[in-house]
Amino acid sequence: MPILSMLSLLDYAGVAVFAATGALSASRKQLDIIGYLFFGAVTGIGGGTLRDLILGQAPVFWVRDPTYLVITTAAAIAVFLSANRFESRYRLLLWLDAAGLALFCVMGAEKGLAATGSPLLALVTGILTATFGGILRDLLAGEPSVLLRPEIYISAALTGSALFVLSLAFGAAPWLALLSGALVAFLVRGGALKFGWT
Amino acid sequence: MPILSMLSLLDYAGVAVFAATGALSASRKQLDIIGYLFFGAVTGIGGGTLRDLILGQAPVFWVRDPTYLVITTAAAIAVFLSANRFESRYRLLLWLDAAGLALFCVMGAEKGLAATGSPLLALVTGILTATFGGILRDLLAGEPSVLLRPEIYISAALTGSALFVLSLAFGAAPWLALLSGALVAFLVRGGALKFGWT
Amino acid sequence: MPILSMLSLLDYAGVAVFAATGALSASRKQLDIIGYLFFGAVTGIGGGTLRDLILGQAPVFWVRDPTYLVITTAAAIAVFLSANRFESRYRLLLWLDAAGLALFCVMGAEKGLAATGSPLLALVTGILTATFGGILRDLLAGEPSVLLRPEIYISAALTGSALFVLSLAFGAAPWLALLSGALVAFLVRGGALKFGWT
Repeated sequence: MPILSMLSLLDYAGVAVFAATGALSASRKQLDIIGYLFFGAVTGIGGGTLRDLILGQAPVFWVRDPTYLVITTAAAIAVFLSANRFESRYRLLLWLDAAGLALFCVMGAEKGLAATGSPLLALVTGILTATFGGILRDLLAGEPSVLLRPEIYISAALTGSALFVLSLAFGAAPWLALLSGALVAFLVRGGALKFGWT
Repeated sequence: MPILSMLSLLDYAGVAVFAATGALSASRKQLDIIGYLFFGAVTGIGGGTLRDLILGQAPVFWVRDPTYLVITTAAAIAVFLSANRFESRYRLLLWLDAAGLALFCVMGAEKGLAATGSPLLALVTGILTATFGGILRDLLAGEPSVLLRPEIYISAALTGSALFVLSLAFGAAPWLALLSGALVAFLVRGGALKFGWT
Repeated sequence: MPILSMLSLLDYAGVAVFAATGALSASRKQLDIIGYLFFGAVTGIGGGTLRDLILGQAPVFWVRDPTYLVITTAAAIAVFLSANRFESRYRLLLWLDAAGLALFCVMGAEKGLAATGSPLLALVTGILTATFGGILRDLLAGEPSVLLRPEIYISAALTGSALFVLSLAFGAAPWLALLSGALVAFLVRGGALKFGWT
């Protein structure tokens, strides 16, 4: 697969799973369907929006390509139609959030590296893209931030971003660097959720 | 009235009523006069600031035209001098917030449409401009967000923005589209406040 | 000392002390070392980031000069290694926050004045730069905002910014305007902390 298509695909997937966590948050707060759409959009595109603003890339990505809004809308509707089937919506939210974190830490690092050429800034935009959507979601829902839970969270995003940047520096193909960074971030955060790693 | 003057007038009015809700929040928190000014400014110009940043229109509107800061300051002082006369400041806050929401959803949609030409993005900037000032106010004041109240809120902003965009698409004069969108948004949100519509 | 070096020095110092308050917040929440780094960075550079975005100066300052991230990292590590020695970390946080507020209100006003030429906007960017990092820190940590404490807070930032702007207008040398503005802001906020001024 060409690397550009793969980047888009991972990005769309990350937006979809984060949007689903936002919609699950709306579900837990018993909001109406428009509330699902709103929380889905804010959570799905919040991290990338902050990243674009900081890098000076405005108008931001979802203004340039409204496909992203279609994706958050579809994800929010899917959750609206199915959320009541899940026994523990918060548990599901945490696992989807882990998937979104894994996808966004490498995507954010990739965009930061492309824009600035600095590995340090790539780590920062990786972490920021991966965490800010969830931070916004929890702030707006009035829930304790997932940042403050005892298990590993920001460290997983850092690990994934760092592995991506290091793999590239050691000459790995971009697709391999992306996939291995995302996979390791997911394993670290997943281990934290499953085994309570701190 | 020329459409540009009318746009400015509606915009100034929206900033004034949102600034008043911020100042009422400061009053409920027993802040000093500078706290009133701060909460007035953040609430009055917060939504439009986010809109401008996302659309890539920086420096933002109130840096280009400091009249907006004069308006938030005047509204905050007016509340400072009169807030103790109101029996229920929270009730007043909610009604002024409804007026601000109605004015800002059409103004935000108008600016989003002018900047992008996309009706979908116009809905998004309409909702975002109408809600983000109040979200910031509640976050900074440590109050449960008005978003999470059971009655209709975001939907009212969506209705107003959508009516504005549709009216234009069907050839309505801009002033008519603006006024009807704002009026319907206010009626929807006002009905929610008065009759508890959910 | 040339005025540019002095500006950089005050700016770096402000970032360092605000980063330390963020790390203290992470310490109070018993986060891991990565949490210290994250809260240090967000608090140290949050206010200046918002200032740059509003003024249309993107990419923001710490993307242009990553020294700032090195400083927040160093400050966070210093707090990580020493925080358990302090009897009252919250008291220390408040005093460092006062120092950061004093440094940032004049730095923010200086940058706002340089960018816009408007004394009114200089006051606004002064207050915003001085307060927004701490607002973010408290929001993310789920703590009551320092804004809402009864003692003088925003007023101290306003006093410092105003003294800086007025001193310049009356022909004072820039270094004198910077130092006197920062000193008076610190004295006002320090008096509020020490004697409970409201």
